[in-house]
Amino acid sequence: MVGGGKDAFIGAIHRVAANMDGLIELSCGALSINPDIAKDSAKSLFLPEDRTYLTFDEMIKKEAALPKDKRMDFVTIVTPNFAHFAPAMMALENGFHVVIEKPIAFTLDEAKQLKKKVDETGLILCLTHTYSGYPMVKQAKAMIKEGKLGKIRKVWVEYPQGWLSKLTEREGNAQAAWRTDPKKSGKSGAMGDIGTHAEHLAEYITGLHITHLCAHLSVMVEGRMLDDDGNVLLKFDNGASGVLMASQVAAGEENALKIRVYGEKGGIEWAQHEPNTLLVKWLDQPTQILRAGGNYGDRLSSYATHNCRTPGGHPEGYLEAFGNIYRNFALTLGARISGDKAPAEAADFPQVDEGIRGMAFIDTVVKSAQSEEKWTAFEV
Amino acid sequence: MVGGGKDAFIGAIHRVAANMDGLIELSCGALSINPDIAKDSAKSLFLPEDRTYLTFDEMIKKEAALPKDKRMDFVTIVTPNFAHFAPAMMALENGFHVVIEKPIAFTLDEAKQLKKKVDETGLILCLTHTYSGYPMVKQAKAMIKEGKLGKIRKVWVEYPQGWLSKLTEREGNAQAAWRTDPKKSGKSGAMGDIGTHAEHLAEYITGLHITHLCAHLSVMVEGRMLDDDGNVLLKFDNGASGVLMASQVAAGEENALKIRVYGEKGGIEWAQHEPNTLLVKWLDQPTQILRAGGNYGDRLSSYATHNCRTPGGHPEGYLEAFGNIYRNFALTLGARISGDKAPAEAADFPQVDEGIRGMAFIDTVVKSAQSEEKWTAFEV
Amino acid sequence: MVGGGKDAFIGAIHRVAANMDGLIELSCGALSINPDIAKDSAKSLFLPEDRTYLTFDEMIKKEAALPKDKRMDFVTIVTPNFAHFAPAMMALENGFHVVIEKPIAFTLDEAKQLKKKVDETGLILCLTHTYSGYPMVKQAKAMIKEGKLGKIRKVWVEYPQGWLSKLTEREGNAQAAWRTDPKKSGKSGAMGDIGTHAEHLAEYITGLHITHLCAHLSVMVEGRMLDDDGNVLLKFDNGASGVLMASQVAAGEENALKIRVYGEKGGIEWAQHEPNTLLVKWLDQPTQILRAGGNYGDRLSSYATHNCRTPGGHPEGYLEAFGNIYRNFALTLGARISGDKAPAEAADFPQVDEGIRGMAFIDTVVKSAQSEEKWTAFEV
Amino acid sequence: MVGGGKDAFIGAIHRVAANMDGLIELSCGALSINPDIAKDSAKSLFLPEDRTYLTFDEMIKKEAALPKDKRMDFVTIVTPNFAHFAPAMMALENGFHVVIEKPIAFTLDEAKQLKKKVDETGLILCLTHTYSGYPMVKQAKAMIKEGKLGKIRKVWVEYPQGWLSKLTEREGNAQAAWRTDPKKSGKSGAMGDIGTHAEHLAEYITGLHITHLCAHLSVMVEGRMLDDDGNVLLKFDNGASGVLMASQVAAGEENALKIRVYGEKGGIEWAQHEPNTLLVKWLDQPTQILRAGGNYGDRLSSYATHNCRTPGGHPEGYLEAFGNIYRNFALTLGARISGDKAPAEAADFPQVDEGIRGMAFIDTVVKSAQSEEKWTAFEV
Repeated sequence: MVGGGKDAFIGAIHRVAANMDGLIELSCGALSINPDIAKDSAKSLFLPEDRTYLTFDEMIKKEAALPKDKRMDFVTIVTPNFAHFAPAMMALENGFHVVIEKPIAFTLDEAKQLKKKVDETGLILCLTHTYSGYPMVKQAKAMIKEGKLGKIRKVWVEYPQGWLSKLTEREGNAQAAWRTDPKKSGKSGAMGDIGTHAEHLAEYITGLHITHLCAHLSVMVEGRMLDDDGNVLLKFDNGASGVLMASQVAAGEENALKIRVYGEKGGIEWAQHEPNTLLVKWLDQPTQILRAGGNYGDRLSSYATHNCRTPGGHPEGYLEAFGNIYRNFALTLGARISGDKAPAEAADFPQVDEGIRGMAFIDTVVKSAQSEEKWTAFEV
Repeated sequence: MVGGGKDAFIGAIHRVAANMDGLIELSCGALSINPDIAKDSAKSLFLPEDRTYLTFDEMIKKEAALPKDKRMDFVTIVTPNFAHFAPAMMALENGFHVVIEKPIAFTLDEAKQLKKKVDETGLILCLTHTYSGYPMVKQAKAMIKEGKLGKIRKVWVEYPQGWLSKLTEREGNAQAAWRTDPKKSGKSGAMGDIGTHAEHLAEYITGLHITHLCAHLSVMVEGRMLDDDGNVLLKFDNGASGVLMASQVAAGEENALKIRVYGEKGGIEWAQHEPNTLLVKWLDQPTQILRAGGNYGDRLSSYATHNCRTPGGHPEGYLEAFGNIYRNFALTLGARISGDKAPAEAADFPQVDEGIRGMAFIDTVVKSAQSEEKWTAFEV
Repeated sequence: MVGGGKDAFIGAIHRVAANMDGLIELSCGALSINPDIAKDSAKSLFLPEDRTYLTFDEMIKKEAALPKDKRMDFVTIVTPNFAHFAPAMMALENGFHVVIEKPIAFTLDEAKQLKKKVDETGLILCLTHTYSGYPMVKQAKAMIKEGKLGKIRKVWVEYPQGWLSKLTEREGNAQAAWRTDPKKSGKSGAMGDIGTHAEHLAEYITGLHITHLCAHLSVMVEGRMLDDDGNVLLKFDNGASGVLMASQVAAGEENALKIRVYGEKGGIEWAQHEPNTLLVKWLDQPTQILRAGGNYGDRLSSYATHNCRTPGGHPEGYLEAFGNIYRNFALTLGARISGDKAPAEAADFPQVDEGIRGMAFIDTVVKSAQSEEKWTAFEV
Repeated sequence: MVGGGKDAFIGAIHRVAANMDGLIELSCGALSINPDIAKDSAKSLFLPEDRTYLTFDEMIKKEAALPKDKRMDFVTIVTPNFAHFAPAMMALENGFHVVIEKPIAFTLDEAKQLKKKVDETGLILCLTHTYSGYPMVKQAKAMIKEGKLGKIRKVWVEYPQGWLSKLTEREGNAQAAWRTDPKKSGKSGAMGDIGTHAEHLAEYITGLHITHLCAHLSVMVEGRMLDDDGNVLLKFDNGASGVLMASQVAAGEENALKIRVYGEKGGIEWAQHEPNTLLVKWLDQPTQILRAGGNYGDRLSSYATHNCRTPGGHPEGYLEAFGNIYRNFALTLGARISGDKAPAEAADFPQVDEGIRGMAFIDTVVKSAQSEEKWTAFEV
């Protein structure tokens, strides 16, 4: 693991997610650029001293030098955005698979370089767009793919948070500090941090691609350097219209990612706050409440059931969704190691192509926000 | 009453709403352009034959000729949009107050003529933007006015319906037929029919005005003549950003008008499907569930309590909200007749100015949808 | 109308409910035992002075003396429980139909006398068990009757309120004062006031009868004279088990009547706070959200659609449910007057038999609460 | 681990829960009484062959013979109820701490023997009443303990499931088979399986003890050997009244454990299906929605925050609640090993006393169900 020391948020989440199913074990780490934190963190995680590293460079070199059955199997990168590319590229170059926090890189160009390297090496790059790991997101995707809703006409995806309603980055909040700093976070704030999740979810569930967008980005909190609020009109490649909203100044909201998709015959609604429920709405029948683990025979897709550990009524949450990404990555990796092909359900996790679309989304949104043209093409 | 015969939807609603509080009595009507329907409808409503009219022209003339204490007090107009202006103008010219379904007229110009006549005559024109009659909408408005949420930063208003997901207008549905016919409905479909409600609600609750917008309108159902789906980016006069969505092809949705407003300190969320509840979200305290009729001392605004007939837990709905518009109009009219001033709570109902903004909204949205400029100014 | 002066709660509700559909007009009243209130109230309701009475006795005698087409059609009784019987009996004896607030009388014996008189005269006695007027309650009843849930196994009905959590009756609350006074309310407090609604709802929806019960009644607020909290085990005549809970000291609850019924194949859940929704749960299919006015072809029972004034998504509430009782009574009365038979949907409103069961329920619950036997038979 | 082979449900849950926080590692197991399943299961869990045992007897003996730093630290017992006591007692006798699925044993007497042995040895026995591991359950308990609700008056706890609505035990469902078999499950079905969870939750949250109860148990599915449905009236030691309902024939319900508690000043409501939310209701203020991980300063108890891994809006579920039991057990064990005292928050997990009350509850409920007396004393 690169990054994720004691003072970080997402690193701990990655570790719980990776631990959960007993398929993955943390074997080494360069957990912080601060050597004391790196060592302390490693100790508290029971890492052996000889595999506690102070830089990713050291880690990758030394691990690569170990015998094949002693070295780490893959590298997880949980540093701030600006520090994704270098360790990822170096890991790939040294033959290690990679798991990486979103967004995949700092710029679209970096993302494309990673894509090239992945293609060259055949290694796996897993991008942790957590929300696509939820079973009822898988269910929604499967139903749309099977045509249950008919042709898709409208996509609404919203992601309101409230935690940046004040100038939190000046109040000693390390999370806020790097996420609102263009040198560490990239050219967008809210759109880069959470808008990319919304964009990924919309394309993942519908199987559609955004072709054009029209963005309105704002800095609502005086003194902030990056957008903290944005509204985007969308056009999809099948003619559907859409709206994507991402805000970190929606005071009082937690992490309220929600998507609604409507087709000719019906619609679906999924909200991350109640992730085990998928509302399925029909043009001429009552709305149905589909539940993860529900006892409906084959009505639940194999993609939904594969990503669920418990029977209906035993709520699974964010950590399990995150765990599903790791579990699917591990199953795919395991299958490859043993020369098998992973089942389609296990192979379904975000990879480098999704990373590229995420970076292109950020670029396009920022370009559109600065433009007086209504529509800006979303090109990769 | 003009319009509202047996085959109409909104006329019956107006009658229930007007009846509800025992302040208003239906005294005469020109209920349909079809004489048989006009007569049958009048009979079934116990109207006397001598006050059953076949045209609004006849009604207004004959009623105006009656002695002052025998004639109707005001005219309610519930015809399709294209037939709002003529009876409204004639009523005003003959000294009758007017209650009129939204949108106020067929064109912005008509609306302005009505405004001029209202100003000249001093008569009251009440516009039935029903949703502003709900007590918890009043509560939201009051809280924002009192600064409870701080400066407003973001407004999201959405109005999905699904009933036009097919080419319903060709299947013998009279409602669908006129509402999708540009000759009867006006230059916009969904935006005119329900988008105007959303626009009114957003401006009413926040006390802000939209200054610019960017609209994307679609015709999703092949063969339809007017937009059935639209997404609009908004800028408000205080710098807030916003999104307005209105769709009649959101398959499986009923009448799901919902608004969320966020300020520096907190946010509110209100949904028409559960109208007695107002969620109030705070930056650093738990969300509160405010309920119409709730027992919280003076925490509920007098505007909310004035518009509520029952204690908390006795749900009031659409008809009561509609009834509130009529009740407030009647109280204001009654006060005027008896030379009093109506209390502020009773005087708070939509009037001709709101009608003009609604028409200007339709014009601006349609103009923007046809433009390649990002922002179109919203001017009255 | 007997009772329902300016200082009363339920009288105003009855008037709105009766007004709503334009079928009923308030023609006369003995609105209070306080002559000043009686007169003031009548005046504010636009009653003519010559039909403003000071006692029910005067009203019934003088109205009976009017010519048939000038007199009132029926008497509505909205006095406290102890003052139900005398005006009801006198009205029946003088040939007037009766609408009466629940519980029907002060004692079971009085209820039986009313039943006898109704049987003798053939007049209609309508009992306003409001909650059975909701369309989705009708829907639940219809589905169970049609066997959709299979044999019923379990019934849970709960009715928590919080408004008597303090000794409100000593704080100048007139409502609380009479409802907690055994001389005015009867032998039970919470069970008489709201437990009877729960009992009626359970039997109405399931079509079953309670045969035995085991009651635990408490006085939670020191100084109170009647039970303010109760839990009751139920046995039904088909072998189903059940629980009925009624509490007026559930601090923070409004009027949260809710019922759940489970059969061999599925269950239903209905809550008064969201009355337009009926959850239908299935053993091996997703739960369905049935909505009043929903567009599902014939999936909604004619009993549900008959009691609904608006399309789905236009919430109807308590006043409409109350209005349905009046409307059905008026339609039935109207049909009788014109020699027709009311349709089954209109004839479906609570009458004298339900009133008797309600009184017997109170008796049985109180008897059981005082007994050390587990089960007490529920006999009429 | 004893039990929990490939064909079991709860064993896998225990493993995920124990893995989650990286504090516990599965080191050995006697995973099934079927030797093939035991071996296969161990292999798939990466257990070494020399620590794959075929019986708990073998496991405990051989592990006890290992050097102190090589042997297992504690034994987890996840066998059916009838097979809890023997391995638990043997583990304690051999100096191993124990984690055990509820109910603690097959009979009250066994439970008392375990209590005696725990008292003698000073070892820890952790009982996995999962639902008490949820952070918002902790929050409810803390608020009641601090007197926020005033004196408690009423407790409603309900636990409906639908999965035994048919004679599932005869359809090859192994779970159903042992749980409905009095030889394996004990003297009660639904009350033993889930009623004990409800009893524990009610006593845990309120800090009160049930003193008397009145139970109505039913066998709703013909051919079943144990109760599948029950309703119980409760009296608590402070005078509060209560109802406990547990049913496995509530067709269409999943695992809908829910509790409501009302005191003089307010009430709380918590439902396992949405475990991150705690509704707090107040007599004279709006209901509050408290959320796990919410950003409310010190409004959330340290007991709630200690048991939460993520910020608000990242839902945690059943596995995390289960993980909390393990984590607290592990923290307590770790503190003991290193000679420290665990913080109060970590020491708060169900132990042998709760196990005894659970067994006494089963005994008392069954005794009451067979009695014609209204109240049966709940004695340990």
